[in-house]
Amino acid sequence: MGKNLTTRAEDYSKWYNELVIKADLAENSGVRGCMVIKPYGFAIWERMQAELDRMFKETGHQNAYFPLFIPKSYFSKEASHVDGFAKECAVVTHYRLKNDPDGNGIIVDPEAKLEEELIVRPTSETIIWDTYRKWIQSYRDLPLLINQWANVVRWELRTRLFLRTAEFLWQEGHTAHATKDEAIAEAEQMMNIYAEFVENFMAIPVIKGLKTESERFAGALETYCIEALMQDGKALQAGTSHFLGQNFAKAFDVKFANKEGKQDYVWATSWGVSTRLIGALIMTHSDDNGLVLPPNLAPDQVVIVPIYRDDEQFEATSNVANELMAELRSLGIRVKFDNRDTHKPGWKFNEYELKGVPVRIAIGPKDVENGTVEVARRDTLSKEMMNKSEAASAIKELLDEIQKNLFTKAIDFRKENTTEVSSYSEFKEVLESNGGFILAHWDGTPETEEQIKNETKATIRCIPIDADDASGSCMVTGKPSARKVIFAKAY
Amino acid sequence: MGKNLTTRAEDYSKWYNELVIKADLAENSGVRGCMVIKPYGFAIWERMQAELDRMFKETGHQNAYFPLFIPKSYFSKEASHVDGFAKECAVVTHYRLKNDPDGNGIIVDPEAKLEEELIVRPTSETIIWDTYRKWIQSYRDLPLLINQWANVVRWELRTRLFLRTAEFLWQEGHTAHATKDEAIAEAEQMMNIYAEFVENFMAIPVIKGLKTESERFAGALETYCIEALMQDGKALQAGTSHFLGQNFAKAFDVKFANKEGKQDYVWATSWGVSTRLIGALIMTHSDDNGLVLPPNLAPDQVVIVPIYRDDEQFEATSNVANELMAELRSLGIRVKFDNRDTHKPGWKFNEYELKGVPVRIAIGPKDVENGTVEVARRDTLSKEMMNKSEAASAIKELLDEIQKNLFTKAIDFRKENTTEVSSYSEFKEVLESNGGFILAHWDGTPETEEQIKNETKATIRCIPIDADDASGSCMVTGKPSARKVIFAKAY
Ligand SMILES: [Zn+2]
Ligand SMILES: [Zn+2]
Repeated sequence: MGKNLTTRAEDYSKWYNELVIKADLAENSGVRGCMVIKPYGFAIWERMQAELDRMFKETGHQNAYFPLFIPKSYFSKEASHVDGFAKECAVVTHYRLKNDPDGNGIIVDPEAKLEEELIVRPTSETIIWDTYRKWIQSYRDLPLLINQWANVVRWELRTRLFLRTAEFLWQEGHTAHATKDEAIAEAEQMMNIYAEFVENFMAIPVIKGLKTESERFAGALETYCIEALMQDGKALQAGTSHFLGQNFAKAFDVKFANKEGKQDYVWATSWGVSTRLIGALIMTHSDDNGLVLPPNLAPDQVVIVPIYRDDEQFEATSNVANELMAELRSLGIRVKFDNRDTHKPGWKFNEYELKGVPVRIAIGPKDVENGTVEVARRDTLSKEMMNKSEAASAIKELLDEIQKNLFTKAIDFRKENTTEVSSYSEFKEVLESNGGFILAHWDGTPETEEQIKNETKATIRCIPIDADDASGSCMVTGKPSARKVIFAKAY
Repeated sequence: MGKNLTTRAEDYSKWYNELVIKADLAENSGVRGCMVIKPYGFAIWERMQAELDRMFKETGHQNAYFPLFIPKSYFSKEASHVDGFAKECAVVTHYRLKNDPDGNGIIVDPEAKLEEELIVRPTSETIIWDTYRKWIQSYRDLPLLINQWANVVRWELRTRLFLRTAEFLWQEGHTAHATKDEAIAEAEQMMNIYAEFVENFMAIPVIKGLKTESERFAGALETYCIEALMQDGKALQAGTSHFLGQNFAKAFDVKFANKEGKQDYVWATSWGVSTRLIGALIMTHSDDNGLVLPPNLAPDQVVIVPIYRDDEQFEATSNVANELMAELRSLGIRVKFDNRDTHKPGWKFNEYELKGVPVRIAIGPKDVENGTVEVARRDTLSKEMMNKSEAASAIKELLDEIQKNLFTKAIDFRKENTTEVSSYSEFKEVLESNGGFILAHWDGTPETEEQIKNETKATIRCIPIDADDASGSCMVTGKPSARKVIFAKAY
């Protein structure tokens, strides 16, 4: 069926851009680098939010809200943080507009200049730790387990819908703990929660690991991350969780009295995922016909399309559709009955394929006669006839199967595109010919990492946590290496 | 019990400020005029959001997300809108910071000046209607029923937590319709939804009405609103819904082809409520002991406090508490068991009174022996003993009763503080001595309205919709008046 979609083989990047637009997920706005998230894209984000929020609350976290603006001086307080974040950002310098006395419309009022510029938050560690100083006095106030759902702004020169936008939506967790061990356990827990969410809910397999020093979050002692592999062989960082040590506590003077009454600095973590995950979702599952959504995430899991020529047929097929819809809903399935008379069945089929609805049901006059319905799967594009009486329970199983199938397909793809190499030349060859995750020995120095990056554009995605240690020697320098790490070109 | 809270009689405004801080709802941040919403305050907002979001979706609205920034030129496109909104606002002029070459920390990079300044949205009509131009071509695309949950910024000189802050959280609905009648029906529907929510969920009675021309939203042809009366006799506008006519469609050139293929401009509405509602909540129900929460809105509806001297008593009371908690939860009640050993029962009683938890249960060793529990109501501060076996179902009823009681109390208060006057001198007298809502005849002119405002500080809150028409003559000019309108001093 003609989607007028560039194929992935033709131009992967163009395919992605077109799909985002045509599936009604998002579009560029009149503001450079800022996107509009359209209702369908936002409904997917809402499902992600609801599930993550549940997982955060189940593990004792509470939501709160901190200011959008951060005084410029706050950024200077944590030395490494300022280098990482206070660069490309939106700066508020004035607080008033006025009518131009020369009649040129409205202008910025030069008299309304702020004494100290405000930065639109690129991330909220500084404003939050400035607040925590007031909230934390004693061990009784710890742990402090807070999450915020918010918009953030990072001025990017080259933007792409969902993957890199000047403004994006995310959640950022910021926790404070009495001990180092507790903070590390929290950072690890959140990496695990992210992995569970992304794998079980989004059907995207991830590798858990640690970032190298040069890839760490600005201000972190350790950055845990989950890395996913996209269909074009490039990696995408799907979530990060940072152990911040006492850096922010020292920068913002956040101390607590322990049980013995002694003062000590608090230990910190922060962790976040963003609307970027929608980019990962698209690039993991979708195909040349459009979006493919895992049932757990799909705003509509099933759509029913009636096929009719006249009012009588419309009524007959609608009756069957309404019955089936009620049955499916009673099983907890999200169903939509598209009975619009403004669009033809073929147009609707095309539309729901493009939008990735997992299961499409068609009901025509013949089906009414025979007590059947036609059930099409989006993931395999296969169709089967079902007896209407058995359809609801069969579709419930089918949705589970689709969820599993998408994950299995993605796991298989990753296996096929993960290569262990033993020499630098082999490394370069695989990177050029196939891409994907490449496991290789590295001597642990930022210099070698930098050299590889400059020569090949591949970065170390992570030092995997779940892999066995197996020592060897660095593919570039021949120096000793404790274990292979994962390289890839990345989004 | 000593809350160290200023009483309302002493200083209402100070009482409010202290309560917001001491009940852990919100606090001022290091950024002028911007608040931090603390976890307890945010949990209340989340309950409000969830209920409103459900009501919006049930009436066919979808959520989406539009950019935080609005190009300055967009504001000039709708003439009356620019006067109302593009004045006190946060202006982004630069997109980069750099290290000061003279070593004075970080400074704004003068080379990174934006060609066109960006305004941090004070409301999103302009950016949204700029987007709708691309979304709307035909009658098939209408109605477009979109809502956005977002932060907005209006630079205010004098701020107060929740009531008036530079940044606040809200929802803004923006809809597009094929006909004028449909748009008016939508604006009225949303006013009704707000009234239903505020009355049934927040237990705050409201008067539905129309704003006078001078109090209308900038760019609206008609502003519908709901007005509530606070304990100090001042009014608070709790929500507004605007019929925007074709103003924004014309300003942003949004046309559609109707069924006959003729081009016409689209009809618009917008509507919103904000975190300001939390201020209304506090000032309607709370007392000198702290916050009073209606059960529908309370993050914890019931709290259980164990009273014990030793481990044995702790175990015995905890067993009873856990049983009761399970029973309450099975009835859908939100319960917290505060078994912390870091705080004494008296401290906890005080804390939950301050935080407005509707029902507090105390369980001591005597209760374990006698099969009883002590149940205290926050609204009346009364206590009663209950048989533990009957407690769960009795508490369920009690929560309903508290919800109703709070609404009834507020309705009674409003009745007692609503006065009909027939002369301007009586008007001034009531306004000075008692305040409250004052019903009076007005000749319908902005001039008289302005005169009354200047002379008394009272504004017309609304032209009530549900009141009977009864003509008379204006209390100031003696000119004819079709019906009495509602005056008050307002927040
Ligand atoms: Zn990694
Ligand atoms: Zn009103």
